[in-house]
This record gives sequence, structure tokens and C-alpha cells, in this order.
Amino acid sequence: MRLSRFFLPLLKENPAEAQIVSHRLMLRTGMIRQEAAGIYAWLPLGFKVLKKIEKIVEEEMARAGSIQLLMPTLQLADLWRESGRYEDYGQEMLRIKDRHEREMLYGPTNEEMITEIFRGTVRSYKDLPLNLFHIQWKFRDEQRPRFGVMRGREFLMKDAYSFDVDEAAARKSYNRMFTAYLNIFSRLGLKAVPMRADTGPIGGDLSHEFIILADTGESAVFCHEDLINMPAPGNDVDWDNLEHIFEGRTALYAATEEMHDDARFKAEVPEDKQVSARGIEVGHIFYFGEKYSKPMKAVVNGPDGEITVHMGSYGVGVSRLLGAIIEASHDEAGIIWPESVAPFDVAIINLRQGDEACDAACEKAYKALQSAGRDVLYHDTDERAGAKFAAMDLIGVPWQLIIGPKGLADGQVELKNRATGERLTVPFEDGLAQLSKA
Amino acid sequence: MRLSRFFLPLLKENPAEAQIVSHRLMLRTGMIRQEAAGIYAWLPLGFKVLKKIEKIVEEEMARAGSIQLLMPTLQLADLWRESGRYEDYGQEMLRIKDRHEREMLYGPTNEEMITEIFRGTVRSYKDLPLNLFHIQWKFRDEQRPRFGVMRGREFLMKDAYSFDVDEAAARKSYNRMFTAYLNIFSRLGLKAVPMRADTGPIGGDLSHEFIILADTGESAVFCHEDLINMPAPGNDVDWDNLEHIFEGRTALYAATEEMHDDARFKAEVPEDKQVSARGIEVGHIFYFGEKYSKPMKAVVNGPDGEITVHMGSYGVGVSRLLGAIIEASHDEAGIIWPESVAPFDVAIINLRQGDEACDAACEKAYKALQSAGRDVLYHDTDERAGAKFAAMDLIGVPWQLIIGPKGLADGQVELKNRATGERLTVPFEDGLAQLSKA
Repeated sequence: MRLSRFFLPLLKENPAEAQIVSHRLMLRTGMIRQEAAGIYAWLPLGFKVLKKIEKIVEEEMARAGSIQLLMPTLQLADLWRESGRYEDYGQEMLRIKDRHEREMLYGPTNEEMITEIFRGTVRSYKDLPLNLFHIQWKFRDEQRPRFGVMRGREFLMKDAYSFDVDEAAARKSYNRMFTAYLNIFSRLGLKAVPMRADTGPIGGDLSHEFIILADTGESAVFCHEDLINMPAPGNDVDWDNLEHIFEGRTALYAATEEMHDDARFKAEVPEDKQVSARGIEVGHIFYFGEKYSKPMKAVVNGPDGEITVHMGSYGVGVSRLLGAIIEASHDEAGIIWPESVAPFDVAIINLRQGDEACDAACEKAYKALQSAGRDVLYHDTDERAGAKFAAMDLIGVPWQLIIGPKGLADGQVELKNRATGERLTVPFEDGLAQLSKA
Repeated sequence: MRLSRFFLPLLKENPAEAQIVSHRLMLRTGMIRQEAAGIYAWLPLGFKVLKKIEKIVEEEMARAGSIQLLMPTLQLADLWRESGRYEDYGQEMLRIKDRHEREMLYGPTNEEMITEIFRGTVRSYKDLPLNLFHIQWKFRDEQRPRFGVMRGREFLMKDAYSFDVDEAAARKSYNRMFTAYLNIFSRLGLKAVPMRADTGPIGGDLSHEFIILADTGESAVFCHEDLINMPAPGNDVDWDNLEHIFEGRTALYAATEEMHDDARFKAEVPEDKQVSARGIEVGHIFYFGEKYSKPMKAVVNGPDGEITVHMGSYGVGVSRLLGAIIEASHDEAGIIWPESVAPFDVAIINLRQGDEACDAACEKAYKALQSAGRDVLYHDTDERAGAKFAAMDLIGVPWQLIIGPKGLADGQVELKNRATGERLTVPFEDGLAQLSKA
């Protein structure tokens, strides 16, 4: 993409309304624009990152055997009356009447609807286990939306739902999602710790939140330090046999505020390993057995009669993840994107736009890197060099390829790594080769 | 994908509520499930096709220089008061009040919001032309939703918006979208004819609908027969100079019912070329000048003072396209997907599941075709052969690779083309080679 043809409305000043760094940086970089309280438009830079995160989530869900579909944003109130949650949900549920005065709502989650789909389509225990997921916009009418996409009202969520014949099978499904989540967050460059959590309005008796530590986190969390840097299981696992991964992660103490037991924490965790910090929730998984399947009559034919299915649900806050990643990875100059989700892989900075040799070298690099499959932003405007550096640092492109007349005279270009700040002068072709495989 | 691990709830019977073939087939194949009047869940088969259509639309929009973003589904009523459309829109607009009694709506289209984004971010005429698009769920509260996704209430639309300094430049933007649309529909296997159209609630004075002919079309259309089979311009065009493409398509008579002039039609079109038929609208483009930019004050600094920008908008009914494609391409046995949007490229049919040689050959084919980048559905259940054929015909996979014990004994497999019905017996390796590049 040539910057001159892209739409990147950077702000010169820090927006006054932003209280936390991710909100400030998302506004300054023109990633989002507020259209109403807690409702944002995703401008092209933000949209690109959102899509890259979505793709990683989709890939890891598919690998864990979950099948993608898409449920609508609006739902019938009557569906929620079947589970008893229509009255329970309170003011966070956005209630709507259509032109025929039918009661509807903007879905804050989809347990009821997926249960309805299941009971209308699946007949036999032989079709289980089944795991379905979608990535769709949800709405929660927060009393006081704040912190940008971290606590918005219209937000993008990945939610998955598992169906099994009994609790033992449902625990296997839970472990599959538990493992997939560790892999997802690892690919996003995040150190997410699963913590015993409260089940809240979803219900059930087994639940983990996946938490990343950050000073701006919304709640207090407590865990054993060793959990923070544990490597993700990766994909070379036996998906039918993951209990050891679950055990390995849950043997050490980790709990959110609501589930925290301070006496146990201090007894179980050596003092120098006690981490008491703020955390951001990026995922939340639940096993809730028959909570929805029983009142909604989601049953299958088993070998010895009807079986009420055991269910779980598994959420990832996709739009919130942009904020969480920025909270975890930024510096004074701006965002430092992990390479996996950066809006562009490489920024080409032309130090003297209009200079014949510089323009030709930049064009050549632009084409070569694109051919190598890299997502390239060519900063091709006639702004001065300092402004170009600042802009590319601000939006956090992992690599800068800096091309100027002085270096070019010797056949040299400069590579800059955004995360380390390291700058390296190399022959032009070497620079291309290195960035082609970066 | 192995069918045994996929979620494909086929219906045995034709659903009584479906009046047109696309609705009937989308329900029977388990592509969609109705969750409320005119509101559908997209089950995995339907979701896959939806995503493939979306991808083609995105690619062709990018090629034409449009930049993708994403606007939210909910909008503020006050924004629509600025353009004067809040009162005009009538009952088709779904009006919502949030917990603080703020008036909102579920966006049926985005002219106001994109104009607000533009005026808040773009300052100079040097940043024009600008073309932005998004693909987002919209809501129109139809009095009587019907025909499945063809006239739903919650529907997926691609809408693009262009901003230019004057009418001449805006006409160039219009031509770019006109050309992109011809390419999009051609890649989708559709013969879409641009027709002079009424501007309706969007407004403006230049507008074309892109229409495909089908007996179940919602409106009467009239055109010169030669327009129907004109090849698409393709991508090897000069995007700054497309007037000849626009002229070439609009020189011959083509109009929707609202714009039809029967005397002109009969005078201009030779009798044997007069096509009077039913049509399905799959795209609609508008040039409306300052209709939104003037009341909403979307101006840029020009060389000689402020310029009110000239705008156009360009819609493609993404979810409706699935219905339109099926209306245009089906037979007694089911759907015939164009290869570009088929949910799977190849279906492998194992004629004797459990037979060692058949299973091994199917596994080998499954892996080889996947490695070749093909999207493969392996029908690996123990249903009888007839049921497998019927299912794969019904869901319309373009190629079937049929593997049975008798053929295999001679090293042979069968290829079946869904569109032509042609069956060909070939050596196993030749079959794989042919399908790998199909």
C-alpha cells in the first residue's frame, strides 16, 4: 500500500478523552473513531489489525476442531425467556421492538440461539462431540462505556459452544478450548494466564478467565509467577488427550479477585513467587452442563434413550484484544505490534521523495517485498524524514526500510527494528533478502 | 474437511415455507436457519459461501482503489437528523433507545456516518479522490420479509463511498465502481446488466442497478439482448480512463421498471433484441453530488477556498448474492455453484467406507488435493453410495471424485462434473492431477 493512496488520519495531539494508553494510541493513529458512546468505526489501520487477529483466532479454532458459522446480531426475546435469562439480564441488554412490536434484543452472547440451532438440527449422540463458533458483533449497554475498545458497547467477540453426551466428554471439550486459547494468545504475542474465575451471568461451575497482566487492568489478580512465562502447548498435541496440559496450568495458584482465597495463596505460593497485579481479561471459558440444554430441551437419542447434552461456551474478546495488545506492548514513541498482527510487516521510508535514485530504489523494494508476500506500507509522501520516522514508529510497523540518497550512493540502505530500536546499515539486496523472510 | 466432522444438517423434505428455489435449496442444504422473520443464522455451508463471495468483492474493490474500513451497526439518530433522513425513512428503519433513552438506529446504510468520518478527518483537496468501503450487517425492517436471504431484514451489504472535488472527478469515481462491479459479478459467475435506475431514498440524479435476469426476480426490467453476454472489462484497464467502458455498456437500452420508457425501448431496440424479463438487483450505484456533504458540511480546503465534496455510494448485496446465484444456477438435483464461490472445490465420495483399499485411496486423495490448495469435502460416512451422490449434487460441489472397489482394482477412479453431469473414468493419479489444477 502506498501511503499517498491509503487513509491514515493521524492526530497531532493526544486526545483529551483517552484515559489509558491503548485508547490514546488507537485514536492518535487513526485506528478507530468514536461514533457514539462506546461505539466505534474501525478506520483502515485498525480494521487491518482486527482482521489479522480474527484470522489467527479462526485458524486456531479450526485446528481444535471447532466449525465456523455466523449467527445474526438480533435475537427474539422469547428465545431468552426459555432459558430464564431475559428478565435476569438487566439494563446491559439492549432491548428493541420492531415495527410489529415484537420484542427483540441485540445479542450480548449466544448460548440460547446456539442451543436452539442444536436442538433443531442434531438428533443422535453419534454426531457428538460438536463444537461450533462464530465471530460476530455483540452489544452490551454498559452504564459507563470507557477505555476505548476495552469497554465498548458494540464489540466483536468470538464465541464457541460445545455439545457432549456427558460431563467427562464435556471436560475433554473444555480442555481442547483451554489449549486452543493458550495457542491463540501466544500467537498474538501475549502472555495470558488462565485463572479460576467466577461464572457470572453465563452460569455453570467450572470457568477460567485468560488474563494478561497490565497496570491498567480492570481487576486485581493473583498468581504464581511461573505461570506467566510458561510456553504455549503448540499444535503438536493429541487433541483427544489434553488433561496434562490443563493440569500443568492449573496446579499452580491463579485466581481473579472474585475467586481469590488469600490464605491459600500465601500458603501455596512461595513469597518471592507471589504475583499480585492488575489484569485484563482477553478470554473466558465456561463449562455449565445442562444449564441451557435442560430448560430448552436440547436432547439427542442415545444408545439407551434420550440424553440431555452437556454444554460449554468459550469467548475471546476480539476487538478488545487490540487494546490489550497495545497495553502490553508500546513505548513513548507509540505502538509496538507483534509481527503476527502488525497492520503492515514493513514500512519503506523514502528520505528524499522526488529524487530519481531514491524513488527507483523504493519502487523496486516495494515490488520485491510485495512479491515475497509481505504486507508493505510505502511512505511515499513529501513529508520530511523526521515526520516519516515518527509516524511509522507511532503506528508500530515492526520493520522500517530506510532509503536515502547518501546510503544509496554506496549501495546501502538502513533497516530499523521497531521493537529493539536497532538500526543496521546493509547492502540494498541484503536488506531486501532479510525483510523478505523476516 | 471430513463430512463426519463437519456440521451439515441437510433436510430430507422441501420446507413448506419456501416459495422460491434459492430459499428452498438454502434451507434444504442447511446453509441457513431462520431465527426470526427475515433474520437468519448462517450455518457452516452457507457461511463458507458467504465468505468466498466477500473475498471476491474485497479483492475487486481493492483493485479499483477503494480502501476497507468497518463502521458499526448502530448509529445515532442525531446524525440522520443532519441529513434530514431520520424522519423520511419511515418504518423500515429500526429505531432503538438505549438505557439512557438516547435515540439510535440499526443502520440501513451509511451515507451519513461516512460523511461524518470524512468531515472529521480530511482537510485538503490533495487527499482526494478518496473511496472507502466496508462490508457490514445492515437492517431494514421490511413489512413482509420473504424469499429467504433475498428479502431479509438483517442482511450483509458491501457499501462504498467516494469523495471528489467536483462532478467531473466524481464521474470518474463512478466509472471505477461501474467497472469494478462488472468484474465482481463476472467472477461470481453472474451475467449482470447495468440498468438506469431510480435513486429512491439515497437520492441523486445518476444511478445504475446491476440486474441479473431470473423468473423469480422482484421487478420487471427491459434491455437490449446484446448487453446480457458482454464480457467483463477485466483488470487490465486504465483505472483513470474508463469512460469508454461506461459508454459501451450504456449505449444500448437498459432500464428498470421505474425508469422504463416503452416508446424509446421499441424505437431503439430491434424487435428480435427486445428483452423484457424479471430481474434481481445485486448491486446499485449512485452519484448524488452534494446531497449529504452540503447539509453535513463536508468540505475540504481547495486552492481557492473551501470546496464542498461531491459524493457517490455503491452497494452490493452480499448475503442476497447467495440467493441470486442459486436462482441463476441450479437444476432438479440441487445447486450448481460457480467454481469461484463453491463451498468446496471437490467432494471425495468413498463408495465403500471401511474397505481397506477404498479408505486408503480416499485418504491419499484427500491429502494430495488439500496440499494442492483445494478445498475438499471427504464424504467419509457409511451412508450408501446413492445417498452420497444425492447429497453432493444437492449442495453443488463442482467436482466429485468417486472412489470404489471395482474401479480401484484396475487403478481407476471416476470424476464427475456437477454442472455438465459428465462422468469420466481415469487412472487414479490422472484424476488427482486434473483436480489439483481444476
